[in-house]
Amino acid sequence: MAGVDYLADERNKAEFDVDSMKIVWAGSRHTFEVADRISKLVANDPAFRKDDRPMLPRKELFKNTLRKAAYAWKRIIELRLTEEEASKLRFFVDEPAYTDLHWGMFVPALKGQCTDEQQSKWLPLAYKMQIIGCYAQTELGHGSNVQGLETTATFDPQTDEFVIHSPTLTSSKWWPGGLGKASTHAVVYARLITDGKDHGVHGFIVQLRSMEDHKPLPGITVGDIGMKFGNGAYNTMDNGVLTFDHVRIPRDQMMMRVSQVTREGKYKQSDVPRQLVYGTMVYVRQQIVADASCALSKAVCIATRYSAVRRQFGSQNGGPETQVIDYKTQQNRLFPLLASAYAFRFVGEWLKWLYTDVTQRLAANDFSTLPEAHACTAGLKSLTTTATADGIEECRKLCGGHGYLCTSGLPELFAVYVPACTYEGDNVVLLLQVARFLMKTVSQIGSGKQPVGTIAYMGRVEHLLKSRCSVQRAEDWLNPSQVLEAFEARATRMSVSCGQNLSKFSNPEEGFAELSADLVEAAVAHCQLIVVSKFLEKLQQDIPGEGVKQLLQAVCGIYYLSLLHKHQGDFLATSYITPKQAALASDQLRALYSKVRPNAIALVDSFNYTDHFLGSILGCYDGNVYPKLYEAAKKDPLNDTVVPDGYHEYLKPLLKQQLHSAKL
Amino acid sequence: MAGVDYLADERNKAEFDVDSMKIVWAGSRHTFEVADRISKLVANDPAFRKDDRPMLPRKELFKNTLRKAAYAWKRIIELRLTEEEASKLRFFVDEPAYTDLHWGMFVPALKGQCTDEQQSKWLPLAYKMQIIGCYAQTELGHGSNVQGLETTATFDPQTDEFVIHSPTLTSSKWWPGGLGKASTHAVVYARLITDGKDHGVHGFIVQLRSMEDHKPLPGITVGDIGMKFGNGAYNTMDNGVLTFDHVRIPRDQMMMRVSQVTREGKYKQSDVPRQLVYGTMVYVRQQIVADASCALSKAVCIATRYSAVRRQFGSQNGGPETQVIDYKTQQNRLFPLLASAYAFRFVGEWLKWLYTDVTQRLAANDFSTLPEAHACTAGLKSLTTTATADGIEECRKLCGGHGYLCTSGLPELFAVYVPACTYEGDNVVLLLQVARFLMKTVSQIGSGKQPVGTIAYMGRVEHLLKSRCSVQRAEDWLNPSQVLEAFEARATRMSVSCGQNLSKFSNPEEGFAELSADLVEAAVAHCQLIVVSKFLEKLQQDIPGEGVKQLLQAVCGIYYLSLLHKHQGDFLATSYITPKQAALASDQLRALYSKVRPNAIALVDSFNYTDHFLGSILGCYDGNVYPKLYEAAKKDPLNDTVVPDGYHEYLKPLLKQQLHSAKL
Ligand SMILES: Cc1cc2nc3c(=O)[nH]c(=O)nc-3n(C[C@H](O)[C@H](O)[C@H](O)COP(=O)(O)OP(=O)(O)OC[C@H]3O[C@@H](n4cnc5c(N)ncnc54)[C@H](O)[C@@H]3O)c2cc1C
Ligand SMILES: Cc1cc2nc3c(=O)[nH]c(=O)nc-3n(C[C@H](O)[C@H](O)[C@H](O)COP(=O)(O)OP(=O)(O)OC[C@H]3O[C@@H](n4cnc5c(N)ncnc54)[C@H](O)[C@@H]3O)c2cc1C
Repeated sequence: MAGVDYLADERNKAEFDVDSMKIVWAGSRHTFEVADRISKLVANDPAFRKDDRPMLPRKELFKNTLRKAAYAWKRIIELRLTEEEASKLRFFVDEPAYTDLHWGMFVPALKGQCTDEQQSKWLPLAYKMQIIGCYAQTELGHGSNVQGLETTATFDPQTDEFVIHSPTLTSSKWWPGGLGKASTHAVVYARLITDGKDHGVHGFIVQLRSMEDHKPLPGITVGDIGMKFGNGAYNTMDNGVLTFDHVRIPRDQMMMRVSQVTREGKYKQSDVPRQLVYGTMVYVRQQIVADASCALSKAVCIATRYSAVRRQFGSQNGGPETQVIDYKTQQNRLFPLLASAYAFRFVGEWLKWLYTDVTQRLAANDFSTLPEAHACTAGLKSLTTTATADGIEECRKLCGGHGYLCTSGLPELFAVYVPACTYEGDNVVLLLQVARFLMKTVSQIGSGKQPVGTIAYMGRVEHLLKSRCSVQRAEDWLNPSQVLEAFEARATRMSVSCGQNLSKFSNPEEGFAELSADLVEAAVAHCQLIVVSKFLEKLQQDIPGEGVKQLLQAVCGIYYLSLLHKHQGDFLATSYITPKQAALASDQLRALYSKVRPNAIALVDSFNYTDHFLGSILGCYDGNVYPKLYEAAKKDPLNDTVVPDGYHEYLKPLLKQQLHSAKL
Repeated sequence: MAGVDYLADERNKAEFDVDSMKIVWAGSRHTFEVADRISKLVANDPAFRKDDRPMLPRKELFKNTLRKAAYAWKRIIELRLTEEEASKLRFFVDEPAYTDLHWGMFVPALKGQCTDEQQSKWLPLAYKMQIIGCYAQTELGHGSNVQGLETTATFDPQTDEFVIHSPTLTSSKWWPGGLGKASTHAVVYARLITDGKDHGVHGFIVQLRSMEDHKPLPGITVGDIGMKFGNGAYNTMDNGVLTFDHVRIPRDQMMMRVSQVTREGKYKQSDVPRQLVYGTMVYVRQQIVADASCALSKAVCIATRYSAVRRQFGSQNGGPETQVIDYKTQQNRLFPLLASAYAFRFVGEWLKWLYTDVTQRLAANDFSTLPEAHACTAGLKSLTTTATADGIEECRKLCGGHGYLCTSGLPELFAVYVPACTYEGDNVVLLLQVARFLMKTVSQIGSGKQPVGTIAYMGRVEHLLKSRCSVQRAEDWLNPSQVLEAFEARATRMSVSCGQNLSKFSNPEEGFAELSADLVEAAVAHCQLIVVSKFLEKLQQDIPGEGVKQLLQAVCGIYYLSLLHKHQGDFLATSYITPKQAALASDQLRALYSKVRPNAIALVDSFNYTDHFLGSILGCYDGNVYPKLYEAAKKDPLNDTVVPDGYHEYLKPLLKQQLHSAKL
């Protein structure tokens, strides 16, 4: 059967040029080519096999990750890969490892928070991986509230050193990835204390382990925090626990770009603006949004292909049954997720631009857009990761029983993905930050201060509060300006209404606390508007390739109309639309499902994922699902013998009613 | 620190009598006492330890489950437990095992589908566990569509036998629990063929393995289907694959209560009504609803206790930080789930009554309530399992980073629970069945046929279509009849509107398919109404214990008002309520959160779960979370050594830049 494409019919139905769509998805021809080449390189190398992960016990699993990370680094050097290629290679190896934190947090922290002198000392070591670093911020007792960290770094002017110490159990560092077993160094966040005065939390470079034998240095206790959600999944990572017993580090290992401690123990700010740290934050968050679209698109690819393979009910006169993708309920669950994957991709692309923009402005000492950029990235991180986590699980359910097997790839994808809702800012805490920004904007309305960037629409508050949706036929919902105004009006009205309710409280903080659930909903409305508007903006651009733009228009329509339907309570409660207009939106949405249906497989093929990267039998490219499921089952260790281990001790005595004398 | 209760303050705040609430939760004093006694018996027996599960590789995990199942059976015999006690014991052992299917599916199938003669042969063997049975219905190719099963059972009049055969790969039995390794027998569903004629799917008792050495009998190939979602979790179960190569069984192993094959090979119906099978179905589904409230209440108990322990932000003047349970956003996510756990408990109790009622009616040949009972149980199974699966994951997120650790108990609870959305009827397929029933009811309106039971409200369709909500102040939302009418009006209007839209299609089936997403929403509205109305009915009863009823009223209010808010689009679109009334509902909801807050810990204490059963450090009774997390981490196998396995092979050469010569 090798070589047969069971999804060929589906592929032939496509009404657009898949190769062009692949480039749109990748962002550019260059990015596409690099990704295509590197993903195949990884997929074709048996050393990067990953289907055995769910079966490995923790120790073997972790050891195997160490092997892969070393091998990947070896290949990167041998093949003289560029930085872009190397990072793509790690991406396609698709296994959480200490290298993620080394490259993704440790190196950026050094770059962002060290002086030039410090950078020239530490960066070359990190670049060559002569040291392995992690990012040790969170403690057992404090995650969201970074200002509450308890670890101390007390300056000792006698020796020109800082003494790093863990005064309580809850001050133990807890969670940092790569800390438990692999890292030799860490960026440690601790309360800086000079001369008895607490200056709040600052970053320090601390060596954890001997470079000779990898043993923890004196005063340092370090280990792994134990198993996490799922088989395989994030258990390849050594999230760690770390305590310090008066560990001394030289003064120049405080990261001194923004503030410094002098030889005399004087604390002072440098002339580098503090706001610089926001640059790193925008960078990290745009990465998370990009990862969201990647994780969601994997899940959607699996569920879409399997929904075309799976047939259930509806056979007429002995003919084949209906492909489950043809059921409108299946489409109604699946296609909005497919659309979200595209939407997140495009908003992620825009965030890349935003990062460049913010960086340039910071360089020019222009901090004017920072609050808006901060709110917008916080909100988009929250929105996209929540939707992706939920979406992966929905994709699993869309695969019926078989989705529950590890070989479907979906359980591991879910388990490995969900912490994204928590790390780099708990999603609810982030939405509350967005809400603060919104309330500030609302309170400044009329003060003459014009809102900028993604919040610019609030400048038209008067119009948006008054206007009414003018949709009269279902097709009117395809009009971008109608749609944009609907989302703007909803977001504005929710924010303004929160603002009004807040003003009834004499204590604004109490009001904010009391109304925080409503505020979070207003924040979500604002963030959804951003995603919708960036998708619509994308469609204003020239997009080459036959049928590509038309399809993306349909996909975009599915994105905003499914949101509109899901949140129709908001739109109706703020009286921007009528029940009749909401019903027309649903009609239009159904019509778009039919438009997208024949293109569904091609739309997920456009992600250009290898079977290795997808890691799913249900999602395999050729659709030959059943024989592969059958073959994979045979490999479970339980099938090593037909009669299971334990039969003689535990089943036979039970069946033979001889338990009374059995040792159990 | 042993013995200190870190949640004592919280417990002292309770405004109701917890002991009385425990009895309300359990259903009766007797049930409470049995559960209390048996759960402690299990918790105090180290043989039932379960915290090591996430760390065990599959083979050891499974062997350990075999041990526990045998040991449990041994204890059941030694202690001469009643049937009720024995089933509670299995419940509190809390580990999926072949015994679940033996007692939960195999035995009921024998009881429901075998003749008295057959029962007297097979039941004693099953009761003593001299045979172990499973329920083999689903195949690789067919789950939801049972009528599409491909396995054949062909009658051979020559030998008076059935020949059981798997004609295709997709006809392999796939998923049955207990099948892979433990079962000696199975109830197998196959197409009955006599004299070349296909009579559709029927059940057969088939011996799978030798009673001597447990080896599969000739013609039988059987094994495990491999790893499933999560660590530990459902991997203690041997879901199996099974194929038949012309396996012969005696004719009297067809389950012949409802239809029979004679010695001559004639197929005939017995005089026992087919509808009898519905009795079993109602039974199984009420069990699933009860399990939903149990799983959700576990998750809620963990998240509630931890939310009272966890403090983050809001420290003033060096005082302690705010307990995260005091944040309104946390309450807004957590308390509706707490309320759902109670709501599902009470609707589950009512379903038990419904089962008795249906059984009695069936015995009296009264089939009149069957369609309604069928729709109602299908819908409630779907509603409660979906809400529970989502709710567990939300509870995990409510615990921030630490919820992601296996020791929080939540990852395993989620992974083990989610298949409930798929087995015993895929939740969307079930809602479509409810929708069919609703459309039938709508189409009969005015025909004089009065809808009964949970759909009786449709009898007042005219009133419900006309009336408007009369709420004027937030407190009006505490009025049960106001609330009931709101949910009835919403459900009626959605159904009637679907009915009207359907009537525009010339082909009703096409219409149903096209509008199925709307139909599913109407079905959900109907099911939510049932849960709300059963909760309100419960509150009409006499409920002893100081403050108990008042608290339950608040909890009930949270249940329906949070639903109303979540689905306000439905209520607004059907124009039963105004935006102003929706806002008043939110105000009332917030007030109820404040009412419940001081009682939150006592409300979850009322579940009376032991720490063993909860299986969560974050949810431990005494709230002493941090030291326990710390101790548990040390036990991870990765911490056997400070320098990890693999350092010499994979880390040292990397750090020392000697990878070129390393074997990887
Ligand atoms: C897989 C994983 C990897 C990680 N990697 C790292 C790493 O490499 N380095 C590192 O330093 N850390 C790491 N972390 C830690 C992570 O950053 C924290 O878990 C995260 O910041 C959330 O903090 P928390 O766990 O304290 O949650 P908490 O703040 O305790 O959240 C608990 C609950 O309280 C709520 N809450 C908290 N504050 C408020 C508020 N003000 N208002 C309303 N609600 C509130 C939250 O919404 C949540 O529901 C990792 C975590 C995970 C799960
Ligand atoms: C943990 C577990 C234990 C199990 N134990 C047993 C057991 O002991 N014995 C046994 O016999 N079986 C068992 N099963 C199998 C289980 O009963 C089936 O998985 C279940 O019936 C769902 O069927 P399916 O897998 O074929 O899903 P499918 O029907 O293939 O569902 C795939 C998708 O198609 C959709 N779909 C299907 N039909 C329609 C339709 N008509 N309209 C709209 N959408 C549709 C579904 O909603 C779903 O999104 C078990 C399964 C699991 C996961």
